[in-house]
Amino acid sequence: MEPITDTVFNFSAGPAALPKAVMQQAQQELLNWHNLGTSVMEISHRSKEFIAVAEQAEQDLRDLLAIPNNYKVLFCHGGARAQFAAIPQNLLGEATTATYIDGGFWAASAVDEARKYCEPSVQQVKTEIDGKVAILPASEWAIAPESAFVHFCPNETIDGLEINDLPETDKPIIADMSSTILSREIDVSKYGMIYAGAQKNIGPAGIVIVIVREDLLGYAHQTVPSILDYTVLAKQDSMFNTPPTFAWYLSGLVFKWLKAQGGVKAIEQRNREKAALLYDFIDDSDFYRNQVHPQNRSLMNVPFQLAKPELDALFLEQADAAGLKALKGHRVVGGMRASIYNAMPLEGVQALVDFMRQFERENA
Amino acid sequence: MEPITDTVFNFSAGPAALPKAVMQQAQQELLNWHNLGTSVMEISHRSKEFIAVAEQAEQDLRDLLAIPNNYKVLFCHGGARAQFAAIPQNLLGEATTATYIDGGFWAASAVDEARKYCEPSVQQVKTEIDGKVAILPASEWAIAPESAFVHFCPNETIDGLEINDLPETDKPIIADMSSTILSREIDVSKYGMIYAGAQKNIGPAGIVIVIVREDLLGYAHQTVPSILDYTVLAKQDSMFNTPPTFAWYLSGLVFKWLKAQGGVKAIEQRNREKAALLYDFIDDSDFYRNQVHPQNRSLMNVPFQLAKPELDALFLEQADAAGLKALKGHRVVGGMRASIYNAMPLEGVQALVDFMRQFERENA
Repeated sequence: MEPITDTVFNFSAGPAALPKAVMQQAQQELLNWHNLGTSVMEISHRSKEFIAVAEQAEQDLRDLLAIPNNYKVLFCHGGARAQFAAIPQNLLGEATTATYIDGGFWAASAVDEARKYCEPSVQQVKTEIDGKVAILPASEWAIAPESAFVHFCPNETIDGLEINDLPETDKPIIADMSSTILSREIDVSKYGMIYAGAQKNIGPAGIVIVIVREDLLGYAHQTVPSILDYTVLAKQDSMFNTPPTFAWYLSGLVFKWLKAQGGVKAIEQRNREKAALLYDFIDDSDFYRNQVHPQNRSLMNVPFQLAKPELDALFLEQADAAGLKALKGHRVVGGMRASIYNAMPLEGVQALVDFMRQFERENA
Repeated sequence: MEPITDTVFNFSAGPAALPKAVMQQAQQELLNWHNLGTSVMEISHRSKEFIAVAEQAEQDLRDLLAIPNNYKVLFCHGGARAQFAAIPQNLLGEATTATYIDGGFWAASAVDEARKYCEPSVQQVKTEIDGKVAILPASEWAIAPESAFVHFCPNETIDGLEINDLPETDKPIIADMSSTILSREIDVSKYGMIYAGAQKNIGPAGIVIVIVREDLLGYAHQTVPSILDYTVLAKQDSMFNTPPTFAWYLSGLVFKWLKAQGGVKAIEQRNREKAALLYDFIDDSDFYRNQVHPQNRSLMNVPFQLAKPELDALFLEQADAAGLKALKGHRVVGGMRASIYNAMPLEGVQALVDFMRQFERENA
């Protein structure tokens, strides 16, 4: 077996790093899970052994987020993009519009897909405060009265932009929490539905979690594919067809790990420390900058630019050589981006700050 | 690490056993893939490293099946069930019907889903020959003239029933090869589209492969979710959204393994030997029986019943204790079923036959 380089910290925006302890357990039991002599990915999803995995994962997620009993938890195929289509097809009912809050790339992508099924009422909320990118307060969002629901994305991974408040409305609020789920405490009861692709804070790519209030079920359009029909999935405990079992199992290991870390409250505190360490360093420097107003800065994705963009390539090359991986910004915006999800330890952020300080000293 | 029980043979119908050499490689490099210090599941799907994995997997599959250049190969989310919805939404065009050949549970499930999008013309092809279950020859299938395509499932895993011929028709033939792909040589050019959920002969659950003739693209219904739109997926090299990267990587390892075994021609010969060994033993015994006519017996799934069904539980218990796992028949039909996909070695089938002979001796 090749040696593990202990000093590698992976800042990938997604698919992202998973907790090392989880990966070690997965490796240890990959060929012989629960002494069955096979891998967990080689057994029937309807076996009692796998059903125990599935049920435990759901229970642990319910515990972690204090999900009320009147919400279903679904483990689905297709990634969050599939939900962009599933949401209008499941939740519009007779309505012909829904309000889509547009704070960036992902929110806008959800709008594009929704146009296949309705005429979304789109509310642009990106603004500027003191020359920095910011988001309009939720109290100022215009919500179309005939909306079936209000959709938003609380964290835009590309811009590193976060929405921290919720509108007062009687419409169900639907949140794409792909990049923030389990990173902080939330009050699930304020949402009609929460969904999250796994590959940032939950597990490997290829599974998406849907938490949906039961009274919203039963209104699916006739043409929604069954694998995206929440009512079908809820009735069949997310096993209408063969689910992505290995991804489900790994997600369950991450939930267990998170509980062992002290749960969401404890990880939130650590996430705030990590983000503060990095943002404070950037703000104290003239060599690095972040363009987002402090009130809307993401806890999970920290984009930053060099004062001398001509040094970008050198920065990335030297960072990589120092074991600080995947720091390149999204191709749409360029620059750098450090994604610091739950699995990133404080030492990883500290190592990044140390490297940035050194790089500044050598290149300022 | 727990010891690996060498004597375990896993006859699961799916998710099914993967080649041991593949699982060992996956385990070895799980924490440190290509010396990156991270797992392959922790890197961006758009990184040059993962794109190399994706492209190599496609090339190896093209080599293995001799896929002509005018076919696209897609790696998709959702399992074969998602394709039950995707196929009519992508391929009906202006047509309002398609012919669905119904040979069993899976073919009929495809019909149920197709009814959301058209009025399928359903052709029952299950019949009886000499008191055994069989399938009507393809030359006798009625194909509705206004059909956009003809859909069938060449292997019904539950009944262990195989269709071995193709109709003469100018309609595109669509085949659900989830349980037979790569198990034998096929002439791809005879099909409009072939698709297969991975979890039997390809890799872990959660990825499905679509091989579709290019001239069939471009006719998707407006309401098809983008993640199921073949034209969108083809344009974006199956990376419209984050694909199930680990499943894709593992599928690629299986393709490499299959090439090392001598390719599809060699594995077909071995599959025929395995199936003959088991069927011949069953036919020579009065204690076991298989209800399928020899002309339609599945190479992949061998259901069998005991002459004394009251011994079923004892058979399964003792087989399990002997390391012969997951032999219970599907809940719909009961009895026993041995799934002997590519990854099952001849020794596994031999061990099963030895056990069956011993069990018969002790219980006849």
